[in-house]
Amino acid sequence: MIDLRAKPVLEIRRQALRDRVAARVASGHRPPKLCVILVGDHPASQIYVSRKEKMAGLVGFDRETIRFPGSATPEQVRLRVSALNADPSVDGILIQRPLPPAFDEKEVCLWVDPEKDVDCLHPENVGLLLTGNPRFLPCTPGGILLLLDHYGLTVSGKTACVIGRSLIVGKPLAALLLSRNASVIQIHRQTPDPASLCKLADFVFVAAGSQGLLKRDWIRPGAVVVDVGIHRLPDGRITGDVDAMSVGDSPSALTPVPGGVGPMTIQVLLENTFTSSIGKR
Amino acid sequence: MIDLRAKPVLEIRRQALRDRVAARVASGHRPPKLCVILVGDHPASQIYVSRKEKMAGLVGFDRETIRFPGSATPEQVRLRVSALNADPSVDGILIQRPLPPAFDEKEVCLWVDPEKDVDCLHPENVGLLLTGNPRFLPCTPGGILLLLDHYGLTVSGKTACVIGRSLIVGKPLAALLLSRNASVIQIHRQTPDPASLCKLADFVFVAAGSQGLLKRDWIRPGAVVVDVGIHRLPDGRITGDVDAMSVGDSPSALTPVPGGVGPMTIQVLLENTFTSSIGKR
Repeated sequence: MIDLRAKPVLEIRRQALRDRVAARVASGHRPPKLCVILVGDHPASQIYVSRKEKMAGLVGFDRETIRFPGSATPEQVRLRVSALNADPSVDGILIQRPLPPAFDEKEVCLWVDPEKDVDCLHPENVGLLLTGNPRFLPCTPGGILLLLDHYGLTVSGKTACVIGRSLIVGKPLAALLLSRNASVIQIHRQTPDPASLCKLADFVFVAAGSQGLLKRDWIRPGAVVVDVGIHRLPDGRITGDVDAMSVGDSPSALTPVPGGVGPMTIQVLLENTFTSSIGKR
Repeated sequence: MIDLRAKPVLEIRRQALRDRVAARVASGHRPPKLCVILVGDHPASQIYVSRKEKMAGLVGFDRETIRFPGSATPEQVRLRVSALNADPSVDGILIQRPLPPAFDEKEVCLWVDPEKDVDCLHPENVGLLLTGNPRFLPCTPGGILLLLDHYGLTVSGKTACVIGRSLIVGKPLAALLLSRNASVIQIHRQTPDPASLCKLADFVFVAAGSQGLLKRDWIRPGAVVVDVGIHRLPDGRITGDVDAMSVGDSPSALTPVPGGVGPMTIQVLLENTFTSSIGKR
């Protein structure tokens, strides 16, 4: 079974990105700049944001994390985003989720200028993706494709099952797979017999947010399995949506958790920010 | 087998729309206004456009068809669209497809102001649809859902197969079905064994643009079959993507061609235009 680890992919892509940034700076441009907005003190978000900041630094980006207390009003945050939209030195803006309950998620997706929306959540960018004309790659689905590409796994002409239909993963992932000529089966909580549909697939992408959901009887032997879940067990271990004990050696390839899909998403975020910076001063 | 005819649905919905328009006009508002842009003299387009104009008139809309010769430049047409975008008396703008080869289809989708894009083709509107927050319904997929609703056919919890992945039908239809809790199988020209996947579905939507593609061995007995195809045979008859002779009485319900999906699309276009007119003067 192939262990679809992010590490070797990231070593190559990070170096390539670092080189491109250095070349751009050497030719007189400012470095790309990523701004991350963090509202409140959600513990996992603190970790994710500091990881993004660190990785942005590693490839030579300017970066700024703007912190608001959990009591900040949507209007306060929106005004700050507007200022960043108008700031020509900022290439990418990301609003870290989850946000406090006072924030309307769908509304927030409209705040960031689509040209700086490196998280690919603005409806215009989602629409450009679905219409086959993407401005940015959605971070998690894009990271999954980079991973598959690196390991030489091609979805074209294959059957892909996407478990989940979130705005962050399931929906944009299905759109990307379709654009790469996969036949796509999308299932979710309301699917009466998910295992029987999932079993038809050559590629299984599980982004259900349900720990250990995917068991051996869900997959066809030899399927490629991509685990997008991330859960912390009471004993502190990190695990995913795949029940690794149960699936055993049935898949031909499997992404580990941690160390699989997760670290790839930041790389796409950084590549999007670089893309955004090109053509600006 | 239920014959999913548009006629009874349209009789009810057209009357309802006419009543709402009349009520709005009686309360001092101007009627909704739809502008259709036609470039060149594509014969089927002439028919479609005059039908849209007629139906708009039937429900009490103002309407205008703006004709350009096939030799018009994209810039000439774009400027006219810009003027319509800026004209507060215009609620809906539709650019009739197909366009002459000088026009870049993806570019043209960006011309109409998203708030007047009653054809639901602007990436922002496509994205709002995918994110479950639609501004307008895409005309053909929306018409299909109105048809299913009228005949009491519910996709929630069912398996739906969408054959085709066009921007006009396949992609937005899959998004709508997913939002209605169907499990969605999307197949296309690159699917190696489409019949075997299609056969799993309770609902089959064929929008492949391939005359007579769907045969009896593609469908599970009792499936609901929706035919989005429209083809003119050499003898002048109109037929669809379903091989009606072959499928016979196998489906539990089937849309006729003509008289099924086709006439529904204009109704959605008009309802979108009405929606757009609300909240304006």
